[in-house]
Amino acid sequence: MTEVAVLDTTLRDGAQGEGICLSVEDKLKITAKLDALGVAYIEGGWPGSNPKDMEYFRRMQKVSLKRAKLVAFSSTRRPGMDPADDVNMKALLASGIKTVTIFGKSWDLHVTQALNTTLEENLSMIFDTVKFLKSKGLEVIYDGEHFFDGYRHNEDYALKTVQAASEAGADWVVLCDTNGGMLPDEVERVVRFIAEKIAVPIGIHAHNDGELAVANSLAAVRAGATMVQGTINGYGERCGNANLSSVIPNLELKMNCPSLPPGRLKLLSEASHYISELANVAHLSQQPFVGLSAFAHKAGIHVSAVAKNPVTYEHIEPDLVGNKRRVLVSELSGLSNLKYKAEELNIKAEFETEQSRRIINHIKELEHMGFQYEGAEASLELLLRKAFEQVEDCFKLESFKVLMEKREDNGIISEAMVKLRVGDEIVHTAAEGNGPVNALDNALRKALEGFYPVIKDIHLTDYKVRVLDEKDATAAKVRVLIETMDAEETWSTVGVSENIIEASWQALIDSMNYVLYKKGNGKLKENVS
Amino acid sequence: MTEVAVLDTTLRDGAQGEGICLSVEDKLKITAKLDALGVAYIEGGWPGSNPKDMEYFRRMQKVSLKRAKLVAFSSTRRPGMDPADDVNMKALLASGIKTVTIFGKSWDLHVTQALNTTLEENLSMIFDTVKFLKSKGLEVIYDGEHFFDGYRHNEDYALKTVQAASEAGADWVVLCDTNGGMLPDEVERVVRFIAEKIAVPIGIHAHNDGELAVANSLAAVRAGATMVQGTINGYGERCGNANLSSVIPNLELKMNCPSLPPGRLKLLSEASHYISELANVAHLSQQPFVGLSAFAHKAGIHVSAVAKNPVTYEHIEPDLVGNKRRVLVSELSGLSNLKYKAEELNIKAEFETEQSRRIINHIKELEHMGFQYEGAEASLELLLRKAFEQVEDCFKLESFKVLMEKREDNGIISEAMVKLRVGDEIVHTAAEGNGPVNALDNALRKALEGFYPVIKDIHLTDYKVRVLDEKDATAAKVRVLIETMDAEETWSTVGVSENIIEASWQALIDSMNYVLYKKGNGKLKENVS
Repeated sequence: MTEVAVLDTTLRDGAQGEGICLSVEDKLKITAKLDALGVAYIEGGWPGSNPKDMEYFRRMQKVSLKRAKLVAFSSTRRPGMDPADDVNMKALLASGIKTVTIFGKSWDLHVTQALNTTLEENLSMIFDTVKFLKSKGLEVIYDGEHFFDGYRHNEDYALKTVQAASEAGADWVVLCDTNGGMLPDEVERVVRFIAEKIAVPIGIHAHNDGELAVANSLAAVRAGATMVQGTINGYGERCGNANLSSVIPNLELKMNCPSLPPGRLKLLSEASHYISELANVAHLSQQPFVGLSAFAHKAGIHVSAVAKNPVTYEHIEPDLVGNKRRVLVSELSGLSNLKYKAEELNIKAEFETEQSRRIINHIKELEHMGFQYEGAEASLELLLRKAFEQVEDCFKLESFKVLMEKREDNGIISEAMVKLRVGDEIVHTAAEGNGPVNALDNALRKALEGFYPVIKDIHLTDYKVRVLDEKDATAAKVRVLIETMDAEETWSTVGVSENIIEASWQALIDSMNYVLYKKGNGKLKENVS
Repeated sequence: MTEVAVLDTTLRDGAQGEGICLSVEDKLKITAKLDALGVAYIEGGWPGSNPKDMEYFRRMQKVSLKRAKLVAFSSTRRPGMDPADDVNMKALLASGIKTVTIFGKSWDLHVTQALNTTLEENLSMIFDTVKFLKSKGLEVIYDGEHFFDGYRHNEDYALKTVQAASEAGADWVVLCDTNGGMLPDEVERVVRFIAEKIAVPIGIHAHNDGELAVANSLAAVRAGATMVQGTINGYGERCGNANLSSVIPNLELKMNCPSLPPGRLKLLSEASHYISELANVAHLSQQPFVGLSAFAHKAGIHVSAVAKNPVTYEHIEPDLVGNKRRVLVSELSGLSNLKYKAEELNIKAEFETEQSRRIINHIKELEHMGFQYEGAEASLELLLRKAFEQVEDCFKLESFKVLMEKREDNGIISEAMVKLRVGDEIVHTAAEGNGPVNALDNALRKALEGFYPVIKDIHLTDYKVRVLDEKDATAAKVRVLIETMDAEETWSTVGVSENIIEASWQALIDSMNYVLYKKGNGKLKENVS
């Protein structure tokens, strides 16, 4: 029952990840989300390093957090300088912050090669900086950069660096695996050794270069560490930081180490997805605990076993981390998957009938043709509801035409015309686009928006193409998956054809019909002659 | 220096991953790639379970592998049945395979709830099945499904199940964390205990539901396991299997446990990317060891520190796993890459010139746009030979038009018109096709065949589409890869555009120009006015 303090550095170390760029607004929203989740510390940035972080800390002065302590990051003072005169220290004090992380060098090689100073001066830099900030009444977390590599090369010196921080009054000493290459047994041994040498609480800061950052964090806790630093979804430079979305549930559910206030673990999946949306990084569906596939069952044997008793193929109840069980309907599965799916979609129907057997055969045929519903649940729901006569299409295609033209080295022009029947009316529209599908999408929206304003609020967020039977080359079938969202939810639809435009069209109209059905616009169908 | 046997189950357990669907062709290609990488065992599928796997094993009978042993997967015999009469056993023997993995139940709960049989009968099922297959002269790997969960709930019974396999003569006993929820210290303790109880070599099969599959695999090796089962890139059901792309380099570089033949580790990154291409799953750039970002350094201090001494910010030399360091200022590394590539393609040219610097910048721009030459060497060779003025295009596009029309529920009609200049002549053709690209391909061939009869002998064998920047949905860029072959060789070309037709066109004409250059038809260019 050791309590573990979680320091989230998504906003600082996580923002170093390739392709991640957070605005000040994004950072404020993520701060609120992390506070609601209940982490102990939120490392918001480095006030001295750039104007964006300065603005963030300025605006955070007006925000009061419910549980988390806001932390600013900075380095030790420069060589040969009084901390009181150091720009970084001044920026820290000006930020109005109560808790700081100070990082210093633990590896002799870095002291002499990167800092260009002496080993003695580096110890003074650590000691003086911590002492100075403590004298100003701040809580000080000391991060020993490259601690494990330093320890491996010069055990005595690495120990001295953290002793300097400890003697100067640091509240926490954090051992960093900056290059991310340690193995868990080594981390455990070193943390145990340091925990015996210094009286200050120990923390761990791991990187994932060996795919071991979560294991290394847990190994450190086993050895006595009581702080874990990491990022949501493991964002960070190179291979990322320790993934808190996995560290936290492992601590809470497997190691009996509380790290969030009671009842908050359920918020984890939503926080993880929310932060990936703001970071504009696709959420990894395989991600442990919080990923869309984390509790998805595909094999028929698994599905029937899980239906009887979930513990047979699930290491935890998905609900504990706010995730959901999903059953995938695929060629590898059978009737039990479909029944389970229908129940999940709240489709009431009798399954032991001739009608449902026909439906199952129809789905099997479609799957044989290349349809795949495991990534396209909205198409599956529509298909089932149509089969059980619970929904009808809200419009009917009369015709469409797509034209593309290219002249010499100029770009290509794509235009589409769409003619639909909506109720008694005929609507005929034309639009351009970046490509044929985009042009078709634009023309279709133009046609429907007048009848169904809800179409204005939806947008496509993902478009995937998979070529089936690739050996048939350009005459092969393609499967198109489209993801659409409105303010509330995201749904996926599928289309299959030898013609990519036709396949895209099928997925597009499924997407439109799905939202119209969900929003109750299906009513208009009653007027269809 | 313990040697560890790697069993790759990408083709079997990996194929259970959500969104992964491998054709028989894909499986054959992946088998060849894994054999070249040098894994000890390749688990190809379950011959009794579906026609696709049956066809795979049938076709593999004609293939001889250099190092790997091909393995078929199956379950123990059914309750109350003679192994000789069991359908699964018959399918195994019919497959002509020499090595099999047999999985059986270790967890009492599964025996009574899922198998609906007695604990005693389950032990007989394991014993009889292994004994039967050994009597047929096969190598038998016994996988104890849910071993760790079973051990936790009923230690005695779990032990008996693996003892049954061991006494029946199994060559390997593999302990599976099927639900993926174990912690490394527990795995280590249990493996150590079992290794003391049975004389057969032990293996580990870990799943990643706690983001600990790599750590659990390494912990098992530390405790005495000498086989690791996993998949390339960690593909597999839910959160996937132990990621061999991380397990292998950790074993080799960190734990001094050889698991590939000498010199093969360098092939790891390429194998990982190749398999993700075939699985049509985007390669995760943050992926440890093999990801595009795994050794990516920012400009400034990091770059110069790394340039002085890479060990300062890298846990291993990227070259050891066939990966590359990436830095923002990369003109030098770009030049050495280009030289390396040109030598490989046997292109003779002077590189220390202004011209070659322009070429590098041009390639960088193209790569930034989304072109990727790893899987499209014919396009790269054409690009380089054109840049060094060693080849010219054999025809020039004047214009093309593509029309598609769909009426109500009828199929879609696709037509293309192509107007080309070949030498002094203008040729103008029209053709239909299954889809727009097929129509364009047909019209292009019609136009060229009269001038270059060699075009009649080539055919497209593969067509892949990858959506880049998927978040931009239907306005996103797509990359098209086309594979073409004639009687002698196969070559691949690439195109990138927001418009799939334009991207396909680029790849198509590269393919035609490539074969015309190779067959010496480039001569016609001398007549071009």
